[in-house]
Amino acid sequence: MEKIYLDNAATTCLDKEVLDAMLPFMTTSYGNPSSVYSYGRETRLAVETARKTVARHLNVKPGEIFFTSGGTESNNTAISASIRDLGCTHIITSPIEHHAVLHTVAHYCDSEQITHSLVKLLPDGHVDLTDLEEQLAVAGKKTLVSLMHANNEIGNLLPINAVSTLCRKYGAVFHSDCVQTVGHYPIDLQRIDVDFIAASGHKFHGPKGTGILYVKGGLQIKPFIYGGGQERNMRAGTENVYGIVGFAKALDLAMLHYEEESGYIKDLKNYMVEQLQKEIPSVKFNGDYNGSCLYTVLSASFPETDRSEMLLFNLDIHNICVSGGSACSSGASQGSHVIAALESNPGYVPVRFSFSKYNKKEEIDTVIETLKALI
Amino acid sequence: MEKIYLDNAATTCLDKEVLDAMLPFMTTSYGNPSSVYSYGRETRLAVETARKTVARHLNVKPGEIFFTSGGTESNNTAISASIRDLGCTHIITSPIEHHAVLHTVAHYCDSEQITHSLVKLLPDGHVDLTDLEEQLAVAGKKTLVSLMHANNEIGNLLPINAVSTLCRKYGAVFHSDCVQTVGHYPIDLQRIDVDFIAASGHKFHGPKGTGILYVKGGLQIKPFIYGGGQERNMRAGTENVYGIVGFAKALDLAMLHYEEESGYIKDLKNYMVEQLQKEIPSVKFNGDYNGSCLYTVLSASFPETDRSEMLLFNLDIHNICVSGGSACSSGASQGSHVIAALESNPGYVPVRFSFSKYNKKEEIDTVIETLKALI
Repeated sequence: MEKIYLDNAATTCLDKEVLDAMLPFMTTSYGNPSSVYSYGRETRLAVETARKTVARHLNVKPGEIFFTSGGTESNNTAISASIRDLGCTHIITSPIEHHAVLHTVAHYCDSEQITHSLVKLLPDGHVDLTDLEEQLAVAGKKTLVSLMHANNEIGNLLPINAVSTLCRKYGAVFHSDCVQTVGHYPIDLQRIDVDFIAASGHKFHGPKGTGILYVKGGLQIKPFIYGGGQERNMRAGTENVYGIVGFAKALDLAMLHYEEESGYIKDLKNYMVEQLQKEIPSVKFNGDYNGSCLYTVLSASFPETDRSEMLLFNLDIHNICVSGGSACSSGASQGSHVIAALESNPGYVPVRFSFSKYNKKEEIDTVIETLKALI
Repeated sequence: MEKIYLDNAATTCLDKEVLDAMLPFMTTSYGNPSSVYSYGRETRLAVETARKTVARHLNVKPGEIFFTSGGTESNNTAISASIRDLGCTHIITSPIEHHAVLHTVAHYCDSEQITHSLVKLLPDGHVDLTDLEEQLAVAGKKTLVSLMHANNEIGNLLPINAVSTLCRKYGAVFHSDCVQTVGHYPIDLQRIDVDFIAASGHKFHGPKGTGILYVKGGLQIKPFIYGGGQERNMRAGTENVYGIVGFAKALDLAMLHYEEESGYIKDLKNYMVEQLQKEIPSVKFNGDYNGSCLYTVLSASFPETDRSEMLLFNLDIHNICVSGGSACSSGASQGSHVIAALESNPGYVPVRFSFSKYNKKEEIDTVIETLKALI
């Protein structure tokens, strides 16, 4: 039985073209990009070309892009630099951020003299901008605002320009975890005034173990990982050349085909919403699923019954890959901190469906049939 | 003209068998190992099997091995954890450590209340154990000793058990950067009492962007990178599954063929020493090159002349890849902090030759001929 993979917010398959772009650097071109001889310059060129590609798609300067080992490291770097180098002593986040932000913030609050507050959420899961402004106005300290661009569990999109405007008004540093949107959304950083964004390659058919951190030009920050002079003294460690090349290739492909692919995936999501409502009328949805929401994510909740309690387990038996919350915090009994924070459809069982260009309508049909039988 | 690659201490080519082991995880098996469904468990199994393989070769428990993005991150983790979680307020290193240690130590000395001293070196580049003991005896503070197992520029091997005995005698934490030895040397951590070791996959024909940190069982440390619960809450971020699989496969191959390959490479190094002495009698060597020294590295120095000043450049023109110092600190004018600290053969031009199982005697002959013509 073929598996049906609807967990693309957890990770995506590596595109064949991306692998093809990586392979030369896993076979013949293995030189260390920091070496001075021509053979090293070949991989140096590949890294710098990748940087230019990424910079072009985000509409920033190549010097503002730093390659990391993934979104989590990028988020850690932005948050620690905001505290240590930019002087932030207060952090405002939301209760539905990824653990890469929440746990990092908790760590610095524990270990340094940092205070922390959570912005209120509206019933549909969006950030309450009035509350954000009130918190910024009374903070009385240099503040870091860390709010993710699209939520990884419910898909809600942040009104990023409105948040940015508030941050600038109150002199706050603004970091946005864009792990779910880079590669799935056109991000023009000349139109979004943000200090840091984080992205991860494996969320858009690029390789695992690769990410980027955008650092707005002019910000003076120190490395998070110390050592050699790689990444212009900003991120030490021999460059993961194939990962970097793969990240750039995946982003290039994603943006090249953005219009048709996002339309196609949006149709899949809408179809699933319609079919769920038609076939399982008791279904409820979490977040602003048909409003300001990323087209790749659909969070649905099903009434708790003897059978639905084991829903994820039973879907797995039917070779359907979906998740209860994010993969990074998965665990049988823990549940999702996002759904819990939203108090969304209590007593219901939440399931995250997340789509890619490789999913098909027939797969949605099979999932709906299976769900009908299981609920 | 075929290139002659004698810079294997900078990076090595990826073994075909390693790539073959990685490819299934870059094509069909792309599930997120943290996902709960069976498809995620497939990659989880691969990660845990890799961990067992690595643990077996180092003779430790799988729970003592943590996968990271590379040797530099591993070194950063060990040093920061020693300070923050193990209470070290003094650090003893040597002036010839890798920058991944020296720059990290410098950072913590700047930002926290940490003092730092450098152990004296003997004329042959080995650590002066008498001085180390004196420093430990007078430190009066909880101390971290961070000394690399084999120096990446001159190959000198640390008397690791003697250092360990001193560390235990004075209650010091002992970290050893083993980036040059893991995969090139049998390391039995039941016979070496060390708290942390760092290793990097791409130094022994594994992938770039992967490393491990060994943390001795019982040590209570916190993560360096915060976020999801990966690596048993010790290293957040979606696991680089192919990198992890590749790291383990490369180590497995390296240890399987250790006897014959190390013998072969040692012969190449000895041959190069003999030929250099015969053909270029003015040659000098750095470090304990024919004593307690790793068989993969040979640091030679040539008299400075009008022509030898451009030696690396001219070797490059002849498609010979060697380096002046480590790749991580390369740069035309900087020179090597290791050779400078040793005051080894001043007025001579240092060149590091580093060998792999893929090098051939004929390549050494060509390099000697070229050097003769250039000096």
